[in-house]
Parts: sequence; structure tokens; C-alpha cells
Amino acid sequence: MARVAVVMGSQSDWPTMRVTTEVLSDLGIDYETAIISAHRTPDRLAAYAKAAEQNNIAVIIAGAGGAAHLPGMLAANTVVPVIGVPIESKALHGLDSLLSIVQMPAGVPVATVAIGQAGAKNAAYLAAQQLAIQDKALQKRLQRARQMAAEAVVASQEVLNG
Amino acid sequence: MARVAVVMGSQSDWPTMRVTTEVLSDLGIDYETAIISAHRTPDRLAAYAKAAEQNNIAVIIAGAGGAAHLPGMLAANTVVPVIGVPIESKALHGLDSLLSIVQMPAGVPVATVAIGQAGAKNAAYLAAQQLAIQDKALQKRLQRARQMAAEAVVASQEVLNG
Amino acid sequence: MARVAVVMGSQSDWPTMRVTTEVLSDLGIDYETAIISAHRTPDRLAAYAKAAEQNNIAVIIAGAGGAAHLPGMLAANTVVPVIGVPIESKALHGLDSLLSIVQMPAGVPVATVAIGQAGAKNAAYLAAQQLAIQDKALQKRLQRARQMAAEAVVASQEVLNG
Amino acid sequence: MARVAVVMGSQSDWPTMRVTTEVLSDLGIDYETAIISAHRTPDRLAAYAKAAEQNNIAVIIAGAGGAAHLPGMLAANTVVPVIGVPIESKALHGLDSLLSIVQMPAGVPVATVAIGQAGAKNAAYLAAQQLAIQDKALQKRLQRARQMAAEAVVASQEVLNG
Amino acid sequence: MARVAVVMGSQSDWPTMRVTTEVLSDLGIDYETAIISAHRTPDRLAAYAKAAEQNNIAVIIAGAGGAAHLPGMLAANTVVPVIGVPIESKALHGLDSLLSIVQMPAGVPVATVAIGQAGAKNAAYLAAQQLAIQDKALQKRLQRARQMAAEAVVASQEVLNG
Amino acid sequence: MARVAVVMGSQSDWPTMRVTTEVLSDLGIDYETAIISAHRTPDRLAAYAKAAEQNNIAVIIAGAGGAAHLPGMLAANTVVPVIGVPIESKALHGLDSLLSIVQMPAGVPVATVAIGQAGAKNAAYLAAQQLAIQDKALQKRLQRARQMAAEAVVASQEVLNG
Amino acid sequence: MARVAVVMGSQSDWPTMRVTTEVLSDLGIDYETAIISAHRTPDRLAAYAKAAEQNNIAVIIAGAGGAAHLPGMLAANTVVPVIGVPIESKALHGLDSLLSIVQMPAGVPVATVAIGQAGAKNAAYLAAQQLAIQDKALQKRLQRARQMAAEAVVASQEVLNG
Amino acid sequence: MARVAVVMGSQSDWPTMRVTTEVLSDLGIDYETAIISAHRTPDRLAAYAKAAEQNNIAVIIAGAGGAAHLPGMLAANTVVPVIGVPIESKALHGLDSLLSIVQMPAGVPVATVAIGQAGAKNAAYLAAQQLAIQDKALQKRLQRARQMAAEAVVASQEVLNG
Repeated sequence: MARVAVVMGSQSDWPTMRVTTEVLSDLGIDYETAIISAHRTPDRLAAYAKAAEQNNIAVIIAGAGGAAHLPGMLAANTVVPVIGVPIESKALHGLDSLLSIVQMPAGVPVATVAIGQAGAKNAAYLAAQQLAIQDKALQKRLQRARQMAAEAVVASQEVLNG
Repeated sequence: MARVAVVMGSQSDWPTMRVTTEVLSDLGIDYETAIISAHRTPDRLAAYAKAAEQNNIAVIIAGAGGAAHLPGMLAANTVVPVIGVPIESKALHGLDSLLSIVQMPAGVPVATVAIGQAGAKNAAYLAAQQLAIQDKALQKRLQRARQMAAEAVVASQEVLNG
Repeated sequence: MARVAVVMGSQSDWPTMRVTTEVLSDLGIDYETAIISAHRTPDRLAAYAKAAEQNNIAVIIAGAGGAAHLPGMLAANTVVPVIGVPIESKALHGLDSLLSIVQMPAGVPVATVAIGQAGAKNAAYLAAQQLAIQDKALQKRLQRARQMAAEAVVASQEVLNG
Repeated sequence: MARVAVVMGSQSDWPTMRVTTEVLSDLGIDYETAIISAHRTPDRLAAYAKAAEQNNIAVIIAGAGGAAHLPGMLAANTVVPVIGVPIESKALHGLDSLLSIVQMPAGVPVATVAIGQAGAKNAAYLAAQQLAIQDKALQKRLQRARQMAAEAVVASQEVLNG
Repeated sequence: MARVAVVMGSQSDWPTMRVTTEVLSDLGIDYETAIISAHRTPDRLAAYAKAAEQNNIAVIIAGAGGAAHLPGMLAANTVVPVIGVPIESKALHGLDSLLSIVQMPAGVPVATVAIGQAGAKNAAYLAAQQLAIQDKALQKRLQRARQMAAEAVVASQEVLNG
Repeated sequence: MARVAVVMGSQSDWPTMRVTTEVLSDLGIDYETAIISAHRTPDRLAAYAKAAEQNNIAVIIAGAGGAAHLPGMLAANTVVPVIGVPIESKALHGLDSLLSIVQMPAGVPVATVAIGQAGAKNAAYLAAQQLAIQDKALQKRLQRARQMAAEAVVASQEVLNG
Repeated sequence: MARVAVVMGSQSDWPTMRVTTEVLSDLGIDYETAIISAHRTPDRLAAYAKAAEQNNIAVIIAGAGGAAHLPGMLAANTVVPVIGVPIESKALHGLDSLLSIVQMPAGVPVATVAIGQAGAKNAAYLAAQQLAIQDKALQKRLQRARQMAAEAVVASQEVLNG
Repeated sequence: MARVAVVMGSQSDWPTMRVTTEVLSDLGIDYETAIISAHRTPDRLAAYAKAAEQNNIAVIIAGAGGAAHLPGMLAANTVVPVIGVPIESKALHGLDSLLSIVQMPAGVPVATVAIGQAGAKNAAYLAAQQLAIQDKALQKRLQRARQMAAEAVVASQEVLNG
């Protein structure tokens, strides 16, 4: 059963949010994907968020661009933690997405990550870290991923130095 | 019966949004005020927007700061036109409010005005202009207000030149 | 007879503003287009705006980039509601256009929408929403458009989930 | 034993981070506070983060301003989830703090919240939501806090309408 | 007879624009002041600019804040050179004023100076420099003002070094 | 003999500044071009600016990008009016160039125009407007150019409307 | 004999730059102060920078605000390393100062530090670090200052925890 | 033995940082390169910085993008001077990198240069200038490089003028 929901506002966000799902897969975390628009399907959004807990969703990851209300409105409808990924928008390059997602009022947080694909990856790692609070096996996999990333840095230096 | 709804996310927005109601009063337009938080009372927001039309609300004015989802989520739940007033936020001075309100995706517009009190006044004038499309008496009052503003400019010059 | 005027400052704005006219057509709203430059043809601008009401123009949509004075100067010459579309400028990507259009002083509002094509579409929807205050058939078409947009979101999810 | 660590880079961050501890207290969550500077005490930072897990710290909250390396460097030294609070800096009002905290590279996320006191409150709520994944009693308290916030909105409307 | 016109959009701009007139006085340049609003008195603006040349106005200085259309619309109605002073606006501190004034389209320039009082002073110096192209006595006064400014720097060093 | 100097910091600025020279040619204004770097050839810069007046240079136009000290340092060495063109820089798209050029301290103005090619054209028009204060024939050519620009707008409308 | 020159563009920069001199004093480094304006005393600037080496100046620290050409022009006239301190400007809070100082073209670097007093302090530490490359005693004093800063962090924690 | 360390956070920074090494080579300065990630290899970073002095590293140059903690964390672990190069990031074009690097707190400076390749070149020149405080032969080579750059400007003018 899915533990993480990966939600996006439109199919055009999929090239960014796909990397979220790839990291979740690599970490062995069950997830589901949904396209839900805060502005085009507000009722669907509210229903989805309200049902999250009973659907055993432990963490919601939501990617959105521009006015980017999706993560904040999901958060308004559940106390399941919501992670927001600012999609890189066309004109303002995601600065609008970032501010719209991160500047939430007191009481309803959205855990915001970096703009674009780096953020999409990190949303998955962050969800995993939250699940790992009670899942030592997952925590081990996260530590192993960190170790591999560190080894890749060392290896890249060897390539650089020939 | 109210023709314009003046909605704000929190009582702290009232010093800004009060000027909206003052201009509406001056123009003889019926209005109602409501405090509705997109993040703290999302169901109330959806219900309010969905009932707008049958409650004879012709235009909704919504002020919000920071992530500022209120105008956009009202717009998502009705085709009654929504005017968004970016409240001047503490750290970013309303730039976050402005981008969160104006950068709406295709299909769900919010008519955005200036940050702060100038915008709050203009939200009232904009609502009046929309109502005046079918209300020639109101249109005359708007034209008279413009004329008075022009005369005030001329009078201020006389003060300046002593 | 045209109910909406779609005005732009230069032919180079047409690729953006064309989408405004496409939405107006889809909604069955009569419109006219005009190229009027605030800076190159200021008299023409003033005359056009002043004649708007007697020419039965109910809403003016104006797209402009950079210093972007067109929407504000149209608004200064009429009480017909003016919607401003910030065109994406080359160096500053429309941030200059947005601030020049939205930060109008008290008394002369411009209803500002998003930068670029999303804004150009929304200008048409916003004009339609304003006309729909007194036009129940148009309001129905707008509600139907919203419903179709919602259905498209649901359909895209099915595509995503294969 | 502390479940949440509230870390700040300097005593001058305490007026902001105190509100984090107040919310944690209200929610009945054990916490500890620490002043650790990424730049003045880097070894202490590394040791603190590396020991977090064995010290039973489930979530780290870190507030920092300006270059704001504290949250990111804590995150680099542990897989315990780290929440970053951008402190409002003097010249750039926290925009520097926000970008320095949120724009983390792939693999090492920081869950970023709003600039200043709203963010400091939300850091506590976010930590609570993460702990509540496995703590139904805490989840109930969070839902009750949401309900009270909603009731406060309704009450404020009654005050407004006299 | 006035050679320079100092125009502002509202009496609230006078504290900034007064320093322009003080520098003009110091340099012995005749000037007139006018309060003309691009948005409240557009016809007056057009008439004023069109009459500039026959009224012997050689340079126009215009201060404006926010959307700040005044300098650009004066420039649109005359080929007399126009200098624009971005007034420091409340929310965005004059960044909106600056971009609205400086980002003019090809063919209609506005000579833009710094935001606020430094810009207001420099508008006067710039007007003087333009008049001095054909006025050697004025050029001498400008060179003397520069020399005095240089001497003041040297004197301030002596104060600093005690 | 040259009346206008078109100066740039590096050969890479020529694609922008060439349009300045084209407009000057069209208006029949003599000009000279120079590549002078504020940072690589500071003595040459000072000597060039100090000799401007005796070399009969009436207006200096300077294009620069990034830190963009060229216009301001030319202005520091002469009272001949200096027009600054912010070149579009790679990373920050000319926002750095704009602020570095326009935010000059009191006493030493630079007449700043728009970022990039629009600004480069307008620098030429602005120089011409300054020369036209005492040159009625040039003023007529400027008015004719404005008239042609206005006619081009009208013609483009006819193309649009087919 | 002075090893470090602390230069500022105007007496109004002294409240910021005084902290530079205090840190230099604490570290036992000889320094001299000078008020030199890039725009009001350009010749003095060039002469000062060119004489730096023979005057045994090893490092120049220059504070400037707004267009902030002082550090860059000093750097253009010497190969002695120049450290630039962006003074917090009124309207744009030092963002203009920062970009004008840091965005130098290839070949003429300015070592830029933070906006305002933190940067002014760090300019002194940076100068000391450069001198310490060949001065082991100074390096020891710098290490001791770091140690004391670390101890102050630990002490502040004890205060916090009562 | 290496006198300058050129450090980068990832192999993807090499296209920028390679130009640093090219300038160092041209100036005859020994250097070493290292890939060290502040976030993926924090212990390696601390060890590298702490050993810098005994490894005879006189200056460290560090390039980083986004949150860009590398230069600041190297500086936190040594009093060897650190020069930071803001790498041009994808979404925000290096503005995030710049602010994260330059806005360091008092006591731990990073000498920041321009965003991207111009900054990468200047990091090498700045390191050389610091080494040249005690190395007259290197100072001569730097002066010669300046002279060649000046000559190249003059030559480019001859090309421009044909």
C-alpha cells in the first residue's frame, strides 16, 4: 500500500516529478501518483487530502509552478506532512513558485525544497527521512545512499585528476 | 442585498481592506465583509465561493499576504470575478503576496491590483467599474470621482505654487 | 458589435495576445483588435479609450511589455474596466512589465493577470466573467469551460497511470 | 528525553526561535535547544548532528540568517530530517537566508519554511506532523490545533461584524 | 522665462522633488513646477508636454512612483528631453518606479536617474549639463560645483583624521 | 567633427552599441566610436572624458555590462552629459548593469536608458534630443521620426486586421 | 607604517567602516583611513591607488554604496588586492552596492564581502588573513580570535539554557 | 608544491573552474584541484581545510552553486584566505549562489567574486594578488598581464575603426 503520494498540478509537471518517483523506487518506498489541480479541481484536492490519512498516506509530495497553490491547499486539508516542490516556471524561473509555496502562514506548514529537479529528488529523500524516524531499515538505506554519494564525489576527483 | 464581497484571510488584514469598504461606501455599493482563511478554513472558503452567485454576489474582492492563496482559491470555486489585493507582508514587503496572487494558471484568473492600500482602494474602483458595465448611474458616479480626483490635482498645484 | 477590445502596443505582442482572442472566440464573445502604442501614438490611445463606452466596448484588454504604460493610460482615459497582460520582456522576463502594470495609484485600477500566455488566456476569461455578471448564458459557458478543464485533469491522470 | 532539537546559530536568533519552542511546548513535545554556529563552531556542529540519532533526536529544527549554512550542514551530517527556518536578515530581509537554506543540492534536503516568526511556528508544527506519522495521540492534538485555529477565524469575523 | 519644468504626479512627491528645484536655483537656472498626474489628468499631461517647446521649456524633469507613467507619457508627447526621477515607493522601495521609468521602448527615451533624493538632485545637474552644451557660463558653474564637491571630500577627510 | 561619442567597454558590446550608431546616422548626427575599459584602461578613460569638451563632443553615450563603471567614471571626469546603456549581462540579464549605472550619487548623474538594444536605440534619440535644444532642424527630424513611428503603428494594425 | 588602507567614498560611510578599523586595531594591524570619492575625486582615487604599493599598502579595503564604483576603480589602478564592502543603501538596502562591487569583469577582481557591518568586520579579517600568509604571528592571533568566537558561542548556550 | 587549492563541489563545476586553473597556469602559480562536496563529504571538507596550512596551501579558491556552502565551510575550518566563486545555477542564474557565498557572518569571511566564468578568472587573479604581497616577481607578472589587457583594448578599437 502506498506510503507516499506524489501529486502534481498538471501533466506538464511530470518531467520534474518523475525524478521524485525514481528516488522513491530506488529507496524501496511505495508511492502513488496523482494529477490534481488546486484551481481546476479544488474539490478533488480537498477530498484527496482529507482521505490521505485513512488511505495510509504518510507523506504527501506536491509539485507546482507559478501561483503554486497545490502544496499549501493540500496542507490546509490534512495534518499529514506535505512537501512542496517549486516547479521552474517560464517567465520567473520558479521564484514565483518558491515564494508561493514557502511563505505559508503560521499553523499550516509546507516543507519546501529547491526549485526544479534537485528539489524533486530531495522531496523523495525528505519523505524517506520522515518515514525512517520509525523505520531503521529505511534509515540504513538512506545512510547507504549518502555513503554512495560520498564515494561518487571521491571517484569524480580521481577522474578529474586523471 | 450585497453585490460585492470583501474577504480577507485574517483580522490583521483589516487595516488594509477597510479602505476597500470605504470606497465602496462612497460609491454607494452594497457590500459584505468576511474573514475566511484559505489555509485555516478551506471548507468555509469553498462553500462561500460556491454560494456567491446565488447570494447575488457579483464581484469578490480578496486581500491576502505571503503565500496568499485566498484570492486564487476563491476563483477556483466560482466564475464570479475575483479581485486580489496583495497585502504588504513583513519580510518581503508584498512581493511574495503579489506573485502568489497574480501568477495564476490559464483558466482561473484573479484580477490583481497594487500592493497595499493603493491596491485596496483600486479593488473597490475595479469592482465598481465591473458593475457599471450595466449600471449607467454607477458609471456616472465613477466618472464624477475621476473628475474630482483631477480637480484635486489642479488644486494641489495651486497650493504648491502658493 | 464588439464587446471586448484587445489592444496591444506593437505587432510583436500578437503571438501572446492571439491566445486572448482565441479564448474570446471559444466563448462566443465579440471582440476587436487594435495596435495602439502609448508612447508612439498617445493621442490615438486617448481617443480610443475615450470612445470605448460609446463604441459599446464593455471591457478593454491591453498587453504590453517593458515600461508597459498602455493598460494604465487606457485606464486613465475611461472608466470601462481595463485588464492588463504583462508581456514577457527580453532582459527582465516580464518582471518590469508586471510591476509597471500592477502598481497603479489609487483611483485608476488595472486588473492585472499573469505574465505571458497564461495571462493572455486569463485576460479573456476575466473579461468573460465580468460580462457574465449580467449574462447568464455566458456564465453557463464559463462554468462548462471550467468543468471541461477539470475533466481534462482527470483524463491526464489516467494517461499518467497508463 | 528530547525528540526535537531546536538549534540556532547565535543568541540573536532566539527571539525568532523561541516561538518554535512555545509551539512545541503547547503540543507536548519534548525538545532541547542549542546554539551552534556553522562558521564559528563547525566541529561542534558535525558532532551534534552525527550524535542526533543515538541521542534519540527525531527531528532537527535549525534557524539561521544571511549565508545561513547551519541547516544544510546539519543535514549533511545526519539522515535525521532537518527543518530550516530563514531568519529575517537586516539588509536583504531574509531573502538571502531563504535561498541559502532552500536551494540544497540533490541528496541532502532541508525542509524549508517561511521567513521569520511564521516560519518558526511552522517549523514546530512540521516537526510535530512528522512525529505524528507514528503517534496518533499527537496527530489528534494537531487536528485539534487546526480546529481551534479555524474557530478563531470564525470568531474574528464576529468581532469584525460587531 | 522658465527653461526647465519640474513636474510631479502628486503633492506627496514634493519632498523629493524640492531638492531638484534647490539645485536648479543654486545653478541659476529658471524653472517652473507643475503637479500633473498621468492617470488623473491625462489630457493636462498631453497638453503640457505638447506646449513645452513653444513655452521655451528646454528640459522636463518628472518624478513619479509606483507604475510611474508620468515621465514616459510626457516623453511620448514631445521631443524635448525628459529626465525621470524614480520616487521611493512604500512597498517596493522604488524598484517598481525605476523599472517603469527606465524600460522605455525604442524611440521614446526617458533619461533615468537614481531612486529618491540622490536622483532628484542629479536630475537638476543633468538638466544643467544639457543646457550647458550651448551655455559656457553655465558649464563653468557646473565645473565649479564639481570642484567644490571635490574640496568637500578632501575637507571631510581632514575632519575624519582629526 | 564628431558631436557624439559612442563608447563601450569591450568589443563584445558592439552588437548592442552598433544600433546606437545606426540611429545617429539616420538622424544625420556626427559621431565617433571608442572602446575604453574603465577597469583595463582607467587612464585612457580619464583622458578621453577630460578632453571631450575641447574635442567638441557634446554628448557621450557609454554602454557597459556587469559592474558597468564606464558611464559613471566618464561622468566623473567631465560635465558633458553622459548617457548610460546597460548591456544585457549573462547571469543577471542586465539587472546588475542597470543598477550599477543608474544609482549614481548626488552631483554626478548618468542619464540611464533601458537594458539592451531598446536602450541603445534610445541613447541615440536622447542624445539627439539634447542637441536639438539648440538645433531646430534636428528637432524637426526627431519630430518626423516620431511621426513615422506613429504611422508604422497604424500600418501594422492594418496588417493585423488584414 | 600602514599596511592596510581603509577607504570610503563619503563621511556617511564611516559608521560602517569604523568597525573595520576596530577589528584591525584588535588584530594589531597598522592602517590608514581615507575619504576618496570615485565620482567626486577621480584623479585623487587614481593617484592614491597607483601609489599604494610604494606607500607599502599591502591590502586596500574600500566601502561604497549605490553605484559603488570606488572598490572597482581602486582595483583598476593597482594590483594590490582590493576588498569591497557594500554599504547598505537607502532604497535598495545594499543590493545595488553588492552587484556593482562584485560583478567585476575578468582581469580586475574585487574581493567582495557581506552588505553592511558584518561585511565591514569581515573585510578586516580578510585583510588580516592575506597578510598572515607570510606572518605566522598574525596567523596565530587570527586563530585565537576564531577560538574566542567559538567559546563565545558555547558561553551563549549556557546563558540560554540558564 | 601547490600554493593554491582550487576546490569545487561537483564535477559539473569543472567547466567554470577550469578557467581558474588556466589563469593560475598562465601566471606560473602552482595549484592543486579537488572535488569536495560540503553536503556529501562534510568530513573530507573539514579535514581538507584544516590541513591546508600544513600542506602549504596559501589560498583556497572554491566554486559552488545554489545553496553553495562549500566556500563558507572551508573558511570556517581554516584562517587561510578563501575565495568563493558563485557558479551560475539553473533556475536562479547564480543569484542564490552569490548570496549564499557573500553574506557570511562576522568573523569568517569569504572573498567573493563575480558569478560564472568572469568570477572564475578573477578568483585566480585575486589569489595571485594575495601571493604577490610578498612576491615581487609575481607582482610584475600581474602588472604585465594588466598591461597586455590594456593593449588588447586599444587593439580592439583599431579593429572596430577598421
